[in-house]
Parts: sequence; structure tokens; C-alpha cells
Amino acid sequence: MDKLNEISYALDTFYFLISGVFVIWMAAGFSMLEAGLVRSKNTVEILTKNVALFAISCTMYLLFGYAIMYSGGNAGGVIPDFNLLLTPEHTKNAVNANTEDSPYYSIRSDFFFQVVFVATAMSIVSGAVAERMKLWAFLAFTVVMTGFIYPVQGFWKWGGGFLNQVNFQDFAGSGVVHLAGATAALAGVLLLGSRKGKYASNGTINPIPGANLPMATLGTFILWMGWFGFNGGSQLKISDFENANAVAQIFVNTNAAAAGGVISALILSRLIFGKVDLTMVLNGALAGLVAITAEPLTPNALSATLIGSVGGSLVIFSIIYLDKLKIDDPVGAISVHGVVGVWGLLAVPLTNSSANFSSQIMGISVIFVWVFIASLLCWWSIDKLLGIRIPEEDEYQGADIAECGMEAYPEFTSK
Amino acid sequence: MDKLNEISYALDTFYFLISGVFVIWMAAGFSMLEAGLVRSKNTVEILTKNVALFAISCTMYLLFGYAIMYSGGNAGGVIPDFNLLLTPEHTKNAVNANTEDSPYYSIRSDFFFQVVFVATAMSIVSGAVAERMKLWAFLAFTVVMTGFIYPVQGFWKWGGGFLNQVNFQDFAGSGVVHLAGATAALAGVLLLGSRKGKYASNGTINPIPGANLPMATLGTFILWMGWFGFNGGSQLKISDFENANAVAQIFVNTNAAAAGGVISALILSRLIFGKVDLTMVLNGALAGLVAITAEPLTPNALSATLIGSVGGSLVIFSIIYLDKLKIDDPVGAISVHGVVGVWGLLAVPLTNSSANFSSQIMGISVIFVWVFIASLLCWWSIDKLLGIRIPEEDEYQGADIAECGMEAYPEFTSK
Amino acid sequence: MDKLNEISYALDTFYFLISGVFVIWMAAGFSMLEAGLVRSKNTVEILTKNVALFAISCTMYLLFGYAIMYSGGNAGGVIPDFNLLLTPEHTKNAVNANTEDSPYYSIRSDFFFQVVFVATAMSIVSGAVAERMKLWAFLAFTVVMTGFIYPVQGFWKWGGGFLNQVNFQDFAGSGVVHLAGATAALAGVLLLGSRKGKYASNGTINPIPGANLPMATLGTFILWMGWFGFNGGSQLKISDFENANAVAQIFVNTNAAAAGGVISALILSRLIFGKVDLTMVLNGALAGLVAITAEPLTPNALSATLIGSVGGSLVIFSIIYLDKLKIDDPVGAISVHGVVGVWGLLAVPLTNSSANFSSQIMGISVIFVWVFIASLLCWWSIDKLLGIRIPEEDEYQGADIAECGMEAYPEFTSK
Repeated sequence: MDKLNEISYALDTFYFLISGVFVIWMAAGFSMLEAGLVRSKNTVEILTKNVALFAISCTMYLLFGYAIMYSGGNAGGVIPDFNLLLTPEHTKNAVNANTEDSPYYSIRSDFFFQVVFVATAMSIVSGAVAERMKLWAFLAFTVVMTGFIYPVQGFWKWGGGFLNQVNFQDFAGSGVVHLAGATAALAGVLLLGSRKGKYASNGTINPIPGANLPMATLGTFILWMGWFGFNGGSQLKISDFENANAVAQIFVNTNAAAAGGVISALILSRLIFGKVDLTMVLNGALAGLVAITAEPLTPNALSATLIGSVGGSLVIFSIIYLDKLKIDDPVGAISVHGVVGVWGLLAVPLTNSSANFSSQIMGISVIFVWVFIASLLCWWSIDKLLGIRIPEEDEYQGADIAECGMEAYPEFTSK
Repeated sequence: MDKLNEISYALDTFYFLISGVFVIWMAAGFSMLEAGLVRSKNTVEILTKNVALFAISCTMYLLFGYAIMYSGGNAGGVIPDFNLLLTPEHTKNAVNANTEDSPYYSIRSDFFFQVVFVATAMSIVSGAVAERMKLWAFLAFTVVMTGFIYPVQGFWKWGGGFLNQVNFQDFAGSGVVHLAGATAALAGVLLLGSRKGKYASNGTINPIPGANLPMATLGTFILWMGWFGFNGGSQLKISDFENANAVAQIFVNTNAAAAGGVISALILSRLIFGKVDLTMVLNGALAGLVAITAEPLTPNALSATLIGSVGGSLVIFSIIYLDKLKIDDPVGAISVHGVVGVWGLLAVPLTNSSANFSSQIMGISVIFVWVFIASLLCWWSIDKLLGIRIPEEDEYQGADIAECGMEAYPEFTSK
Repeated sequence: MDKLNEISYALDTFYFLISGVFVIWMAAGFSMLEAGLVRSKNTVEILTKNVALFAISCTMYLLFGYAIMYSGGNAGGVIPDFNLLLTPEHTKNAVNANTEDSPYYSIRSDFFFQVVFVATAMSIVSGAVAERMKLWAFLAFTVVMTGFIYPVQGFWKWGGGFLNQVNFQDFAGSGVVHLAGATAALAGVLLLGSRKGKYASNGTINPIPGANLPMATLGTFILWMGWFGFNGGSQLKISDFENANAVAQIFVNTNAAAAGGVISALILSRLIFGKVDLTMVLNGALAGLVAITAEPLTPNALSATLIGSVGGSLVIFSIIYLDKLKIDDPVGAISVHGVVGVWGLLAVPLTNSSANFSSQIMGISVIFVWVFIASLLCWWSIDKLLGIRIPEEDEYQGADIAECGMEAYPEFTSK
């Protein structure tokens, strides 16, 4: 029987690692999506932010985040155990995984899977603050978000803290990852203000088209692919009948929800705008994916399609409405990950009888309030220290030349 | 022994799911390939078509296609059992997979793998009709193709229907997927006519270069990668010596055939055109892949290289010849997937002694006749109802502004 | 127990095949990286080279390379057994894998994994010689490099030859793959000379910016992703506790090193140039990955971050220094893969007590001397036969029109 356990352990570890690679791949997806949806003069900077945030997230989570999030914690599951900050001993335990530490997979594969989730949350932020935020201010926020703000609320749910204890259900992170990322973005956007020229003084909302829509489409497909790791890996185990069936169901539902999101955004954008808007269709796909993330297991494939399609509609109304509020989000990240993340969390009790609305609402509120206040404080401090907004002339000229001294497409643009 | 069965079941399920993800990734490949090979003014529309067709395919196949294709059928394997259209009961069975339903993997993982094949077939169509077909006419065809035309012929072979009973051999779908897709495309192209300016009245054939060849190259690499799921997953099982060896052989052969296709297209395009034509080399890679898809298991790696290299040559001659016939296929899809698909099917008996030419020819004929007639009827009906071709001035201005109201690269093109 | 062995065999085979697919995907990464870092007028040619080199590598390695590298060899492990050049018998053995041939996975999956490594080595070369080398000269070199030069030194280490016998440690190929590729590139670049206009006669070094930085960033992310297969697969086995833990550790360390490379390049480029240079950050990520490739298993995650961050700093100094020497490497490949490859090999004894510096230095020297001399001879012969450099007017006009008769972005550039 021993060898049997070893193979089971190996299979679960491999499943975890492959899922993690797909999630890492989402970093490329966010980069391409955001690079495609900004103007060419701000493209190098957004690319730099995306590569750098991924690296910083991984390092901060290694140094602090993982320990905070899975510390065991105390005080009724509210305060994580900060004494567990990464010490050589901790590293050693994580490295020398054995069946006692983690009964069915290598603890390092668990770390690998978790580390990429925090990067995903952070990637959500970069899109919303694009085209006007200083590079180093953004990176400073990344340090705090991934080393502290995210892991604390992650501890509350996935680390066994109080949100988990009150039966808040969030399978793969519509709340812990997507809502958290969108909330941090919202706090930043409110402090930062809108891009010059976006909202005219006479009330007109000027569309600012992205420079490279094939790139944005590629980014969406990458995210779609990566989401199978994101949701599929969150079952945490595959090596028996029940778990294998569960993972298969999750893959089917994840795909079905994305498809539903596309179809509803396709039809709705045609009805509202008269023509199909590709960027809305792409956001519809992502909205379908975010919507199913809170509970990809209990719906059947038809319900998943419907849950996704509600997400795909919601995102369009949300983008339109945020623009009316003059909340300027160049890629629609707050709508996709925040508004639809809330929808996904509220939809859990519709198919999962062990969930209830009041716990879901409590979870949503706690994540939103914590991340919003902590982020606002952090953005505000950075603003006082470094300034978060690039100077107006740099914004006109483009962040690329100002912040990075180079152009994304030096031969293509005539300016 | 029970736990052993569970692990085997889990491994096969996981293998199936990962293969399916690679096939889903092919949707991105087709999008990038086609977006790279059309002019910039028609790029948003082709991207929209590709995202939308994938979503519609997945949903139609969930609602109708899977049930038709794997219905069991009757009347000598000709008429599928339409009574099995997705009912809650059917969904429930598919969801609640257990070892009785499917002896070695989750039935949902099988659905996941099958659903992405129909999307692949449909992706083939979008390239051939690019730059002149109405968006909504195309989407209407997608509904019928993926919900009815494709599953019926899929039933004939993979659902155990009459083509399977007469020993027609098509391992991973040179016929059921690629020839079927190319045939539907051909029917559409014949009704649609060529792009304005492609064939001058004096007989000159004007090349219309694609706007973004790095994107087209990326698309080809994505397809190459995805094909390991497409062919490798079609072994359907990996958890014992024989199947593991088979899957490994399929991976090696799939890669070898693509390499062979590249090398022959490289040399042949140099000989014919005097210079190496990158788009021909890319089509050579795809042709090698299509050619090996009908039988990726029985050839050794050298034979696979040769089978692929014949495909890579054929595709060049076919593209040249179709142009002489004024059949305008902007991306060469009919040649790659249709002509080379036929080659792949005819090559099966060369290495697989259980196959024979007459059954292969019968299979090719049946698929071609069925898909061609059904598609022609469908395209014709849509033409009467909606019109399939965009107005001439829209074609001149570009489908993007006309159909989607936006540009793919608003800052790059000087028009 | 028999069925248990079968499942273990299947899992290891599957792990190997998936790892191989990720490595194949690196071919796309190199293509996009290089296509993004050259000027638009040389883009089609670099894409063609990348697709063609992959196909030629796979075919040459099938025909000759694999047999040379894993021949068993003789004469003290110096001279491989060339009698083992691929014969039908050899193919047959490789195809008809069973547990006797290879105790725990299909031999074909091993071939699949190995074949993609040689393509990686060759991909390194194409970037360094970009924008001025003749297409067919490059392809001729590819034939010799992948069919002979690479496999011989591969035999010395991984085929059990004399470098392996003296305890030279190179886990996944900082030396055998990356240093070898960079050395072949260096020999080519020295013969070829620099691009026109790069080094002015008054000593000024003119930067020649790449045409498409989002593409280059995408390429880097693809390589990052593919590296999990490259390093993770090099453990060669996953199906028991020890190996599963090892693979998980390798995944974590590979990611940590890349992150470390990014962070150090980010900070250092800011300090040196005053602004963050995205291309340096991308090279920092790759440098981190190359650095950890020689020993991704024994460091803990913090050490891996440090090893990567040294790589990320080294690469910047190396790129600056090579420019001072007027060694013109458009994508920085010699620095990333060569200089940092050496660092990775020298870092092995820091965390792996079974390694020692003198053996590492011996391995580095042998690989460098062998590949440099053999490559120089090969480049020199090709130069005499075909010429390796395109004519000056072609270089001015661009290799694309001259060599391929087409443009990468015909609608975007105003020239």
C-alpha cells in the first residue's frame, strides 16, 4: 500500500504544479490584455508594471504572505500569527515536505499554487490605474498589498480564519482574489483621478481606444486558459473518484461560464450600442470566468452557463455606470473583478445548499471594507511620500518616455 | 485494488482534462493566425468572430451536439438518436459520473475534450470567409454547424455510426474535424465570392498581405502546441504500459510531422517563388499536423516526418491551384484542413494494416458530401434571410468599422 | 503490483510529455522575444528562422543527434558511438518501449523531452545573429549544430561521457544547453560583425530599439512558463515521494529565481540608466531562469531568489560590456545564456555539497572550447561556401524583403 500512497501523492502534486503553471500564465494574460487596451504611449510602462508586480508578488509572498495566510492564527481567527514570518526554520519545513506535513501532496506544490494567486490579485490593480500612475508608486503598493493586505484577508477565509468559520463560501477566489484586487484598484483610482481628456467638463465621456486589440484578445484567451488551473486546481486533490469527477466538473463549468459571458455580452452590446463591441465581448468572457470562480463545482453545466451570462451582462452595465460616476478604469477591471466578483459570491447559495446569503454578504463586506481601507491608507501614504500621479506633461507625452525612456512601437506610431 | 482503480481513473481524467485545455488553447491559435493574415481593417471583426464562435460552439454542443454525437443512434448507424437532446436527466447523468457510466475516466472530462473539437472545426471556417462575410450571418451558421451538421457526421464515425462500422479510420479527426471544417468553409466561400480586388478582370491574382505576421506566427506555434492535446488526448487513455507508450508515440509523431511539413514548405516555396514565403512555411507546419491527425499512432517517427512533409508540399500546390480557380481563401484554410485532411486519411493504410483505402475513400466522400450539401443549404438560407456578404463600401472601408465600430490598431495605420 | 507499476510508468510518461510540450512552447517564446527586439524590416526573416530551426532541429536530432548523445559511447566517454546513427532497428527499439528498455517511462517520451532541448539551444543562436545573417547560411549551421556539435557535448555530460564521470554537475542545462547555444552564437557574431550603424566610428554606441515590445514581453512570459517544463522535467521522474517533492521544489525555485532576476534588473537598470529599461527587466527574468537551471533542486527558495538576482544583475553588466567590445548581440542572448549560464554552473557548489568548483570549471571550459571551435569552423566553412552576411544594401532595406520578399507589418510602417 505504501507505493500506492506515493503514486497518489505524486499525482496530486503534479496536478497542483500544472495548475500553478496555468495560473502563472495568467500573468501573461493580464499583461497582454492591459497592453492591448492602453494607448501605445503607455504600453512599455504597463508591461514593466506587469512583469515587476509578478516578481515582487512572488518574493513578498515567499517572505511574508504565505506565512501570514496559513499561520493558524489566533484571536478567533481574526489576527494571523505574524510570528510565523518566514524564518529559515519555516523555509526548511516547507522544503522538507513529507507525508506528515501534508497528507497527500508536496507542501511546496501548495506554496507554488498559492503564490500565483496573489500575483493574480495584484495584476487586477495594474489595469485600473493604467496610463497615469507612477511606476515606483505602483511597485511600492505592490509590496504592501502582496506582503500584507492580501494575505490577511486570505487568512480569514482560506487560512481557516473567522470568515471560514462563519461559513463564507468562496471556492477559488471570486472574493479573496478578484474582489480584493478590484477593491484595491478602486481605492487607487479614487485617489488618482481620471485620465486627462477622459471626462470633458461639459459631461461628455470620451472613449480612449486601446492601441492593439489582437493583443487584448490574446490576453483574454490566455486568461481563459489559465483559469482552468485557477479553478481546477482549487479542488486541491484529484487522485480518487470523487475528486477526479469534481475537477472534471469544474473544468466543464469554468468553460461553460466563460462561453455564457461571451454570448450575453455579444448580444447585449449589439442591443445597447448597435454594433458588437469587441472589448465588451472580451470583458464578458472574463466576467463569466470571475462569476463562476466562487462556486465552480456545484452548478451543472447549464447553470454555469447562466451564471456566466449574468456576469457578462452585469459587466457591461457596470462599465457604463462607472463611467457615469467618472471612475476611470481603462480596462474595466473594477467591473470585471469587483462587481462580477460580488455576483459570483452571491450566486453560490443558488446551487450550493451548504451556503447561505447572509454569510456571503458578510464575506463580501469584510473583504471590501478591509481591502478598501487598508489600500486607501497605503495609496495615500505613498502619495504623500512619492506622489502617485505622473506630471501632466508626462501624461500627455506618455508614461513610456517619461518613466521608461523608451517606446513600445517606435516604428509604428507617427507622433 | 479499489484505490488502485481510483488513481488510474484520476490519472486518465487528468490526462483528458489537460489535453482538452491544450485544444481550447487552439482557439487562441486560430484567432492569432487569422488576425495576422487579414488586413488591419478587418481584424476586430475576425477576432470577434473567433471569440464568439468558440462560445457558441461550446454552448450548442452542450445543448445538442454531444447528445446527437454520442446518442447510440439507430437505423444502421445513419440516423442519430435525437431524442437524447439534452434534458435535465442527461445532464445529471453526465454530471454524476461513476465507474459504471465510464469505466476509466470522468464522463465530464470526455465531454470537455469533445466540446473543444467542434470549436476547432468551426475555427477553420472563420479564416476562409474572412474580410467579406457579415458577422451575424457567420454566427448564425455557427449555431447550425456546431449544433447539428458537425455532430451528425461525428456520430457516424466517433459515435459508433455506419462509418465506424465500415472500418473508416480517423484517429483524431483529419476527416471528422478538419475536412468537415474545410468543407463547410468551401461551401461558404463559393456562395460568398472572392474579396474585391483579389482577382483582376485581366486574370491577375493580387496578393493581399496580412497585417501582422508575428501574430500569425504566434498563432501557428499555439496551434502546434495545442495539437499535442488534440492528437495525444485522442488515445483516450494513458494509465497502462500500452496506452502510455501509445500516447508518447503520438506526441513524437505529431511533432515530427509538423517539422516535416515546415521543411518541405520551406524548400518548396524557395524553389517555386525564389524566396522563402513565411506564410507558406506556417501553412506547412499546420499541414504536417493535419496530415498526421488521421493516424498519429502507427507510423514510426520517420514515416511521420514524411507524411507531414507530403502535407507541407501539397498545401503549397493547393493554395496556388485554388487561387487559379478563383476560390478566395485568405488564410489557406481549405487547403490546409481540407486537401491535406484528405491526404492524411488516405495515408492511414500506408502504416496501419487494419485500414484500407476503400473505407477511407468512403469516409472522405460521405463527410464531404454531407457537410457540403448541409452547409450550402444553411449558408444559402442565411443569405436569403440576412445576407451573408457585407456591402461593397463596407468591404472597402473594412469590416471593423462597419460591423464593430472600432479599429484594431487605431494608432498605427495612416488611413 | 503489476498494475501499480503500470500506473507509475504512465504517470512518469505523462509528466515527461507535458514537460516536453512546455519546452516546445519555448520555441514560440524565443520567436516572439526576437521578433519584438529586432526592427520591423527584419522581422519576417527572424520568424522564418525560428520556425525553420525548430523543424530542422527536431529532424536532425531524430536522424542523428539522439543516437550520438545517448549512444553509450567509448574511449573513456570522449567519443560517442557514431555506429548508432539512427537505423530502422534503433527506431524500432525506441518505438517498442517496454519496461526492460526504460524502467519507468516510455522511451519515446524521453526522446520527446530531449529533442526539444536541442531546439532551445539553437533558438539562442538566432537572436544573436539577427538582422544581418543570411537565412540559408543560418539554416545550414542549424543542421550541423543540432545533428553534431550539440549532441557530442550532450553525450559528454548527459549521455554518461567524461564530463559526467568527473562529476561536472549541470541539472537541466545551464551549460549543455544555454552556454552551448550562447557559445555557438558568439562564434557566429565574431565572424559576422556588427550591424551597420550600431557602432559609430567616433566610438558612440547607437541603440537600435526593437519594433514591438509587447511581443518581446509575451516571449519572455512564454519562456518563463516553458521553463517549468525545462527544469521540472529534468528530474526525469515524479511518481514517488522523493521525486514529487523534488519536482515541486524545482518549480518553486525556478519561479523564485526568475522573480529575483526581475527585481535586481529592475533596481539596477533604474540606478544605472536613471529609468527602468523594460528590455533589461525581461533579460533579468531570463537571466534568473538560466542561473537556476544548473541546480534548481538543492537551493531553498530564498537561495534560489538570490541566485536569480545575481543573474539579473550580471546580465546588465554583461550587455554593457559586450557593447563596449563591439560584440553586437541584438537581443542580449550571449549575455543571458552564456555569461549567466557560467554563473549558474559556478553557483552549483554553493548549495549542492556533492559538486565542486574545479569540476564545474572543467565542464564550462570543455563545453566552451568544443562548441566555440566547432562552431567557428562551421560558420567559417559556410561563409566560404554561401556567405553568411547579407549584402549591405539588403541590410539597409531589411532582410525581410531581401530574403523573404514580404513585410511583417505592411500597413504599419511608413517607410
